Amino acid sequence: MSYLDSITIPTLLLDENKCRKNMQSMADKAMRNHTRLTPHFKTHQSRLIGDWFQGIGIGEINVSSIKMASYFSEQNWQNIHIAFPFNPLEAHHLDELAHQSSVSIQLVNEEVTKSLAQQLKIPVGFFIEIDAGYGRTGVEAWDYEKIEKILQAARPTNKLYFKGFYIHAGHTYQADIAGISKIHEETKNALKKLRSKFKEDFPTMVTRSGDTPSCALMENFEGIDEISPGNFIFYDLMQTAIGSCHKEDIAVALAVPIVDIKEEKNEILVHGGAIHLSKEYLMNADGSKNYGEVVLLNENGWNLSEETSYLKSISQEHGLIQASTGLVNQLKVGDLIGILPVHSCLTADCMGEFWSTEGQIIDHLSGQKRQLPT
Amino acid sequence: MSYLDSITIPTLLLDENKCRKNMQSMADKAMRNHTRLTPHFKTHQSRLIGDWFQGIGIGEINVSSIKMASYFSEQNWQNIHIAFPFNPLEAHHLDELAHQSSVSIQLVNEEVTKSLAQQLKIPVGFFIEIDAGYGRTGVEAWDYEKIEKILQAARPTNKLYFKGFYIHAGHTYQADIAGISKIHEETKNALKKLRSKFKEDFPTMVTRSGDTPSCALMENFEGIDEISPGNFIFYDLMQTAIGSCHKEDIAVALAVPIVDIKEEKNEILVHGGAIHLSKEYLMNADGSKNYGEVVLLNENGWNLSEETSYLKSISQEHGLIQASTGLVNQLKVGDLIGILPVHSCLTADCMGEFWSTEGQIIDHLSGQKRQLPT
Repeated sequence: MSYLDSITIPTLLLDENKCRKNMQSMADKAMRNHTRLTPHFKTHQSRLIGDWFQGIGIGEINVSSIKMASYFSEQNWQNIHIAFPFNPLEAHHLDELAHQSSVSIQLVNEEVTKSLAQQLKIPVGFFIEIDAGYGRTGVEAWDYEKIEKILQAARPTNKLYFKGFYIHAGHTYQADIAGISKIHEETKNALKKLRSKFKEDFPTMVTRSGDTPSCALMENFEGIDEISPGNFIFYDLMQTAIGSCHKEDIAVALAVPIVDIKEEKNEILVHGGAIHLSKEYLMNADGSKNYGEVVLLNENGWNLSEETSYLKSISQEHGLIQASTGLVNQLKVGDLIGILPVHSCLTADCMGEFWSTEGQIIDHLSGQKRQLPT
Repeated sequence: MSYLDSITIPTLLLDENKCRKNMQSMADKAMRNHTRLTPHFKTHQSRLIGDWFQGIGIGEINVSSIKMASYFSEQNWQNIHIAFPFNPLEAHHLDELAHQSSVSIQLVNEEVTKSLAQQLKIPVGFFIEIDAGYGRTGVEAWDYEKIEKILQAARPTNKLYFKGFYIHAGHTYQADIAGISKIHEETKNALKKLRSKFKEDFPTMVTRSGDTPSCALMENFEGIDEISPGNFIFYDLMQTAIGSCHKEDIAVALAVPIVDIKEEKNEILVHGGAIHLSKEYLMNADGSKNYGEVVLLNENGWNLSEETSYLKSISQEHGLIQASTGLVNQLKVGDLIGILPVHSCLTADCMGEFWSTEGQIIDHLSGQKRQLPT
């Protein structure tokens, strides 16, 4: 009996082999480039996958909230870095957490630094987040005055110690390969300059950077001590479109039941929508939207289809597939098919757990202790 | 002490007064129009809000999955209709559920009807879903041959009994008021014709229809016995843009902590992103995206801001607000602000629970028994 026989509702499948291969491949690349892999765990949010990372020697990780840090603090990590501008309302949670694990935080302004310097009871390290062009968050790379103010605000206490600079160049997601190269150069240059300016005062400081496109596509990481990509663990259609991976590398697919087929329109209706996949989409060449692509499930995982069939529209729980004629002819109502997600981080968060293609349930933070009626 | 004092992370607030007002207002409208309100519960997915509906005399409801039906089957409903093309892989779950509650299902093809006619052990009613132009799901309104085949397939058994026709005219979401009127006329005409054709053979049959835009904006429901809107319970910015409600009617807002302010750019960075709000957006007049609008929180709920400030970009957990100068000047890092969601159904599903503005925790199916580390 295949693991597929027990699936009756939308279920997120994880191909363990692909996932471990993506993991090893990024670890090898980091080693080849004399940089250290400190992966971001926002994509998988899974302790079991955390175990797999520990199995290949990873000791420091990044997360995006105190809640996520707490979840992983039950495992033995050398350091958990909360790579999100610190939310001062959570200062007391930080103390609780720091009591249990070695954690570090991210600072982007003087006010929060000052307030933590006064409040914290247990020492934590901090990275200063740098904006080298993304425009989302962080101190502008040229703004040494602001950096100095943050360092200054941390100085009076022994509760905050400077660990280095952190960049997330998320604008690579909107760039082509030439654009990614340019952004990567800017990131490296910004970090090199910062290092040369601050290394003397802070000899143990490191530079950390890592969006998946740069880490997957670039080959020179000079100036970057640690890379912190997250999405590479699963990849997805967005990364395929950018060029970071092939569709064969995508390690997750949403299994969905077919509830209707309209042969005359080549449409397949599935139970699988925005609450399962998220509403992230790609634009097809003709301007239509693509919310995910069909793969054919089998006992060991899935096969790519020769002709593309894709989700052309989704609502809360419905998904409508524009299918190739070949696909329509081989399927019937009551069959399961797979959907490669556009953005695997959001799909995993929506789903709250994974089923490995071996039939094992794999944890995800967002589904913890969720016990839904069946 | 205000309920706000205990909020430190993104938290979905529910204004009970607004919610109850939206509920009563739709019930009154149904009564005025001699149609029965059978609300869809996909938006709130909350037993407590189910209690409120029972309090105003509602007895029959719609849900979008067997899982959701199971959740509400612990309450005493006259009927729970699973308004989603039936997934034949869940036939045995349906039997379990029908043992416990009066449930009905939705059928759109002959195959599933035949297979259920053979498999079911406990009688359930069914609606045939009709597509009167939306193009997502259902039998085309003119396709009497297909309708007859479904009825025929159900006939040999006493386990499936016909309840009527169901339409969800979801294309009103993309229409202006003239378009909504046109769609509403088409819906009513389709249902009237179906009724006149099938009423003789099925004298107890009913017609059910109900997207929120039509139910909120239209005044004549002739031909529709039962209306089944869902979103009206909370409304959201999408409904405001359509014209179904005013911003003052929106009953949910996401409270988010401010983690950085860039005065020179009028930008506010908050902890609140795609995993909290969903990636649903509206287009502003200038072509930019709007993922939610800022409201000012107070002890009793929130106030609309005079000048619009909105989320111009979101990633997994970050939200970047384009703020009015007035807003930037009155806020500081560590303050909470509210975000009116673009699509409240998805935001509620992402968040998994609500906090009433009285500080009470209100259940949502997607967060059941979730006990996250704090």
